[in-house]
Amino acid sequence: MSALRLAMIGFGTVGQGFAQILADRGVELQTRYGLEVRIVAVADLQRGSVHDPAGLDPRRLLEAVKGGGSLDATTAPERGWDALETIARADADVVAELAFTDLTSGEPALTHVRAALERGLHVITTNKGPVALAWTELDRIAAQHGVRLEAEGTVMSGTPALHLGTELLAGAGVQRIEGILNGTTNYMLGRMEAGASFESALAEAQAEGYAEADPSGDVEGIDAAGKVVILANRVMGAQLRMSDVKREGITRLTPDDLAAARADGERLKLIGRIERDGSTVRASVAPRRIREDHPLAGVSGAMNAVAYTTELLGEVTLTGPGAGRLATGYALTLDLLAIHRSRGGRS
Amino acid sequence: MSALRLAMIGFGTVGQGFAQILADRGVELQTRYGLEVRIVAVADLQRGSVHDPAGLDPRRLLEAVKGGGSLDATTAPERGWDALETIARADADVVAELAFTDLTSGEPALTHVRAALERGLHVITTNKGPVALAWTELDRIAAQHGVRLEAEGTVMSGTPALHLGTELLAGAGVQRIEGILNGTTNYMLGRMEAGASFESALAEAQAEGYAEADPSGDVEGIDAAGKVVILANRVMGAQLRMSDVKREGITRLTPDDLAAARADGERLKLIGRIERDGSTVRASVAPRRIREDHPLAGVSGAMNAVAYTTELLGEVTLTGPGAGRLATGYALTLDLLAIHRSRGGRS
Repeated sequence: MSALRLAMIGFGTVGQGFAQILADRGVELQTRYGLEVRIVAVADLQRGSVHDPAGLDPRRLLEAVKGGGSLDATTAPERGWDALETIARADADVVAELAFTDLTSGEPALTHVRAALERGLHVITTNKGPVALAWTELDRIAAQHGVRLEAEGTVMSGTPALHLGTELLAGAGVQRIEGILNGTTNYMLGRMEAGASFESALAEAQAEGYAEADPSGDVEGIDAAGKVVILANRVMGAQLRMSDVKREGITRLTPDDLAAARADGERLKLIGRIERDGSTVRASVAPRRIREDHPLAGVSGAMNAVAYTTELLGEVTLTGPGAGRLATGYALTLDLLAIHRSRGGRS
Repeated sequence: MSALRLAMIGFGTVGQGFAQILADRGVELQTRYGLEVRIVAVADLQRGSVHDPAGLDPRRLLEAVKGGGSLDATTAPERGWDALETIARADADVVAELAFTDLTSGEPALTHVRAALERGLHVITTNKGPVALAWTELDRIAAQHGVRLEAEGTVMSGTPALHLGTELLAGAGVQRIEGILNGTTNYMLGRMEAGASFESALAEAQAEGYAEADPSGDVEGIDAAGKVVILANRVMGAQLRMSDVKREGITRLTPDDLAAARADGERLKLIGRIERDGSTVRASVAPRRIREDHPLAGVSGAMNAVAYTTELLGEVTLTGPGAGRLATGYALTLDLLAIHRSRGGRS
């Protein structure tokens, strides 16, 4: 089988993690799955861009950007293409969309994904923006062009929460999905259980590198709501929008609320929930009390988890990391393998 | 794509659960995955046997055996074939081996699986015997004949522990696998934590239907050891035998041992463990103290769980049922879908 030719839009932490995996595990991917990946283009707003149909060595790309260096210093037939020119002209089969996330407009990623699919290229992405805001439209464009949009890394990074739901549990009749989908707030709630105020828990999360300078996306439940929409639409075939998710963050919680739950033998967690109710699907993100024996009760620190309630199996829960450079890079590897299988490759 | 023609060897609880799923969800399997399953033969030692290349309606098969009835009462071109005749002559693509489990000789299932693979038929099974005792040999025969041996139901019933490991985590570099792989003993340890003696915990497990009349396979860790061998060989590519597993059961534990662990902030669980150590793989089943924040610590009652430690993701844990008529039947559905995909079917 011919190599899968990859164009990467964005070469920050996630893109570099992915390149690292392709460098370290390229031989294994080929031996185990018959999958040969050839990076033909990289375009990054800050780090420059290169295109070479003969293939770019991931080690050399990583070397080039080390310590603030630019891809423009690399030898390649074409340099300086921006994202859209790369998507339009690269000699590629797959575009990896790894630009920055915007959960309001979805841009610029939404335009990138749409352009790639309309050109008949597969898309893999870790970017919640386009997938949470426009899944239905994008999935239709992908189907029209006979290509796939894969987005494992948008939920729980490389922990295969989406593939578990779509490939391994879909046939079991998924009735409900509950998850701890945001590591920052789960870490903060753990600190607040230990007595910290909301403010100091947030400061600790920022010091640990979990929370961003503007933490509103995490603490107001917006990030979790994006993941809830993606799970509902990907796994349950719903057509939810962000505005369909009833959302409440953790900003009004106090250490007393957490202590009160504990005193009742319960835990207070920020839970994303999706429930099938006849032909409709309801979704919410809210702090909820759950019993100590609930499968999500023991999920601590920055870990994430998703619990699928199915007709045939009852509850099946997957716990794993929700972030990380290599973990998120691995999500893209899983997406590439899914595309490889759809082209008739080994599984 | 043409229908997948299925011959079932054994039509007890699991076989009937599987037939129920095919009856209830046949249309969904066809719509969602393009998978049409046609049962062409059933052979059961007690319940008789039928063969009809035109297809047997799963509802009629279930009806026939209800209340101790026989398949021989069904109208069909051929009746009365035994298991080996069915495997040799059925107009089938796939054999589902669902005869009784024997972890010493593997028979009669081992002979059934070998015969089916040598005839060039795919095999799906929930039977630990042949898979734990002879995976390496059987996998080689399958490869020689260009067919697959799938066995999701041998570990954690329909909770997709094996597919998670082989399809979704294999590329992440699995270094260690730990699991609570036997529901009976996990239930008993929970009762013993509550103060029950080993004997009364066992009696309760028998009353709940978890433990068999002869409980040695569970309480001596033999059942868990079989699953450890299957996980090691399937997911890590090892070539372990049952005798390679260092095994200790729970028969010498007392409620005091469990209380002592609890007093130290730990839990005592029967843990199956597989570790890669350079080029070798070590495996054991033993009662082990684990910390309260260990991903397996919260797995209670008859639930099962498996924790994969991987290079790229750290620890990823899957929790779900380890038994049940429909749950085990679902495992066979997952196996059929894997075969369907290998024939170029939709995923």
